[in-house]
Amino acid sequence: MVSTELVLSGVLSVSLLVFFAKILAGVFSRLGVPAVLGELSSGIIFGPYALGGLIVVFGHKLIELSEVVLVFAEIGAVLILFTAGLEMTFAEFKAAGLKSFIVGGMGVILPFFSGFYLTLLMGHQFAEALIVGAALTATSIAITVKVLEELGKSRDPDGKLMINAAVVDDVLGIAVLAVVVSVVKTGMTPSFIDVTWKLVTILVLWFALLVGVVVVVPRFMKMLPAWKVEGTDEAAATVVCFGSASLATVLGLSPIVGAYAAGMALAGSKSLRTIRGYIEKINMIFAPIFFAVIGASLDVSGLTSTALFLLLLLLAVAILSKLIGCGLPAGILTKSRKSGWRIGVGMTSRGEVGLVISGIGLTSGVIGQDVYAALVGTMILTTVVSPILLKSAYRKP
Amino acid sequence: MVSTELVLSGVLSVSLLVFFAKILAGVFSRLGVPAVLGELSSGIIFGPYALGGLIVVFGHKLIELSEVVLVFAEIGAVLILFTAGLEMTFAEFKAAGLKSFIVGGMGVILPFFSGFYLTLLMGHQFAEALIVGAALTATSIAITVKVLEELGKSRDPDGKLMINAAVVDDVLGIAVLAVVVSVVKTGMTPSFIDVTWKLVTILVLWFALLVGVVVVVPRFMKMLPAWKVEGTDEAAATVVCFGSASLATVLGLSPIVGAYAAGMALAGSKSLRTIRGYIEKINMIFAPIFFAVIGASLDVSGLTSTALFLLLLLLAVAILSKLIGCGLPAGILTKSRKSGWRIGVGMTSRGEVGLVISGIGLTSGVIGQDVYAALVGTMILTTVVSPILLKSAYRKP
Repeated sequence: MVSTELVLSGVLSVSLLVFFAKILAGVFSRLGVPAVLGELSSGIIFGPYALGGLIVVFGHKLIELSEVVLVFAEIGAVLILFTAGLEMTFAEFKAAGLKSFIVGGMGVILPFFSGFYLTLLMGHQFAEALIVGAALTATSIAITVKVLEELGKSRDPDGKLMINAAVVDDVLGIAVLAVVVSVVKTGMTPSFIDVTWKLVTILVLWFALLVGVVVVVPRFMKMLPAWKVEGTDEAAATVVCFGSASLATVLGLSPIVGAYAAGMALAGSKSLRTIRGYIEKINMIFAPIFFAVIGASLDVSGLTSTALFLLLLLLAVAILSKLIGCGLPAGILTKSRKSGWRIGVGMTSRGEVGLVISGIGLTSGVIGQDVYAALVGTMILTTVVSPILLKSAYRKP
Repeated sequence: MVSTELVLSGVLSVSLLVFFAKILAGVFSRLGVPAVLGELSSGIIFGPYALGGLIVVFGHKLIELSEVVLVFAEIGAVLILFTAGLEMTFAEFKAAGLKSFIVGGMGVILPFFSGFYLTLLMGHQFAEALIVGAALTATSIAITVKVLEELGKSRDPDGKLMINAAVVDDVLGIAVLAVVVSVVKTGMTPSFIDVTWKLVTILVLWFALLVGVVVVVPRFMKMLPAWKVEGTDEAAATVVCFGSASLATVLGLSPIVGAYAAGMALAGSKSLRTIRGYIEKINMIFAPIFFAVIGASLDVSGLTSTALFLLLLLLAVAILSKLIGCGLPAGILTKSRKSGWRIGVGMTSRGEVGLVISGIGLTSGVIGQDVYAALVGTMILTTVVSPILLKSAYRKP
C-alpha cells in the first residue's frame, strides 16, 4: 500500500492550494481581474519556490509539489478539456472545421518560426532554437476555456472558434514536438517529406480518434440499463473521458485532445445535464489545482538578467505571433475586426504543452537553466496577459 | 512530472472499476441485495487476481491496483467517514457518548480475545495470535455507513449509535494495533500498566483532536469572506477534512477518525447543504473505488484447505464476537431487542483497518501466507454477510 502519510500530505497540499486559489480568485474578481489569475497566483505565491517552501509543519513542507499533487494536476488538465468538449456537438465542430483549422494552423506556424529565429539571432544553438520554437506553438486551451466560462461566452461563435482552433494547434503542437525531438535526438535535419509525413500522420490519427469516439460513445451510453443506480451515468462518462484520453496517448497524441473528443461525443447525450452537474463539482478541486501547479512551476530565482532579457523578447514574440497568426485569419474569415481581435488575444496564452516541451528540453540537456527559466516565465506571463486582454475585448462595446 | 501514461492508465483503472461497481450495484439492488456488495464484487471480479489481470490492452493490464488506484481508495476511505460525520452534530455525539463507548469498547475486547485464543488453539504462535486478534477488532465503518445510507437510516438513533460505536472501536483498534506492534517488534509482553497507559494516551489524543476540531472549524468557516467565488466553501471543507485527517495521522491515530471529526465540526455549518451536494458528487468516484479495492485484495488462489478451515472458524468468531460484544450491551442500553440485533449485525463488517493490520503481519513476517489469506477472506466475507443481515434487520417488521 502507498504510505497513508504521503497520500494525506499530498491531498492536504492539493486542498490548501485549491483553497488559497479560491480565496485569491475571490479577491481578483472583486478587483475586476479574471478569477483564473487568482488560481494561477495561488501557485506562484504558495508554491514550493515561494511561501509554500518556507512553512514547515511537523518536519514537512506544508505545500509540496509531490506526486499526488502532480497527479491531481494532470487529471485537472484532462477534465478541463473534457468540460470544454461537452459544450460542443460534433455537428458544430464540423461546421467550424475549416476556419478553426486555418486559425489554429497559422497560430502554430508563425510562433514556431518567430521563436526559432529569435533564439538563433540571440546567439543560441540550432537545437535550442527548435525547442523554443516548439514550446511557443500550443495555446493553453484550459486558460482560454476558463476565461470564456467566467465571461459566459464559451458557447458564442467566437468562443467556439477559439476553442476549436486551440484544439487544432494542440494537435499540431504535438506534431511539431515529435519532429523536434527526433531532430534533437538524431542530430539530423529531416527532409521536407519526413516533416510533412509526420504532420499528416498525426492529423489523420487525431481525426480517426475523433470520429471513432463520436461514433462509439453514444452507442455505449445507450447500452446502459434502465435500472441503473445513481451515479452510473457519471461513472460511464468518467470511463469515456479517461478512456479516450488514454487512447489519444497510446496513439502518440496529447491526452487532452482525447478528452475533448470524449466531451464532444457526450455533448448530445440525454444524460448531459447529469454529467455537467457532476463534472462541475469534480472540477472544483481538479481545475484550480491545475492552474495552481502551472503557477507553482515559476522559479523566480532562476531568472538572471540575461534570462530576463530573453524572457521579455520571447514574451513579445509569443504574444504578437499568436495575435497576428490567429487574429488576422480569424478577422478575415469572420469578416469582423472585433472577432479577429478577440480570437487573437484569446489564443495568446501558453501552458501545459509549452511547459512539457521546455521540460523535455531541459532534462535532455538541449537548453540550459537560463533559456528554461525564460521559457517558463514567458508561459506564465502569457497566461497573465491573455485573460486580461480577453476580458477587456469582450467588455468593450 | 509523473509520467502521463501512468497517471492515465491509473485513472482509467479507477474509472473502469467504478463503472463496473455501478453496473453490479444496479444488478444487486434489483435482486434486493445491498448495492454496496455490487461495488465490492466489482473488485473481486475485475481485480488483478481475477479477470482484471487477464485483460491486457496495449501491453498493459486493463485494471491494475497501481499507486494511483490505491491513492484514490485511501482518499475514498477518508471521504466516506467525512460524509458520515456530516450527519452528526457534536451535541448529538455527546448525547450518544457513553453508550457508544460501551458498545464500541466491548466490540473490541471480545473479538480481540476470541480471535487471539482461537488462533493459539489452532496451534499458531503467540505473535500470530496477537495479529489475528488485533485484525478482528475494528468494524468497517464505511460499509456500515453505506448500507445505512442505502436504507435511509443513517440519521436514526440506532444508525447513529452504530456509527459512533464504530468510530470508538476504530480508535481502540488503533490502540490495540500500537500495543501489538510493540510486542511483536520487541518480543516482550508489556505490563498491564503499559497497555493501559497506551490505551489511555490514544483515547485522550483522540478526544483532544475531536474537541479541537469542533471548536476551531466553525470559527474558520465564519472567517470566509462574504465576496467569495463559487467553490470556496467546498474548498474550505476539503481543507478541513484532509487537515483533520492529517492531524489524526500525525497524532498516531487513523486518518478516518480525523475525517469523521471534521465532518462533525461542519455538521452545524450554514454551508452544510453546499458541502453535502459537493461531497455527494465527489464520492461517486471515491467511494466505489474504495469498496472495489477492498474486494480486489482477495486472492482466491492463496486459500489452501488449511487456510479455508481457519477462515471458516475466524469468520464465525468474527461475526459472533461483534454480534455479542456490541449487540448485547446495545440491546440492554437501548432497552430494545430489535435495536440490539440491528447494532450487532451492523458492527460485524471488517475492512480497511483489519486489512492494514493483516498486511503489517504479513510484511513483517509474523504471519504466513495461509493466515493472511484466511484473515483477508474473513474481512471480505464479513462485509458480504453484514449488509445482508443489516438490510433484513431493518426490513423485518
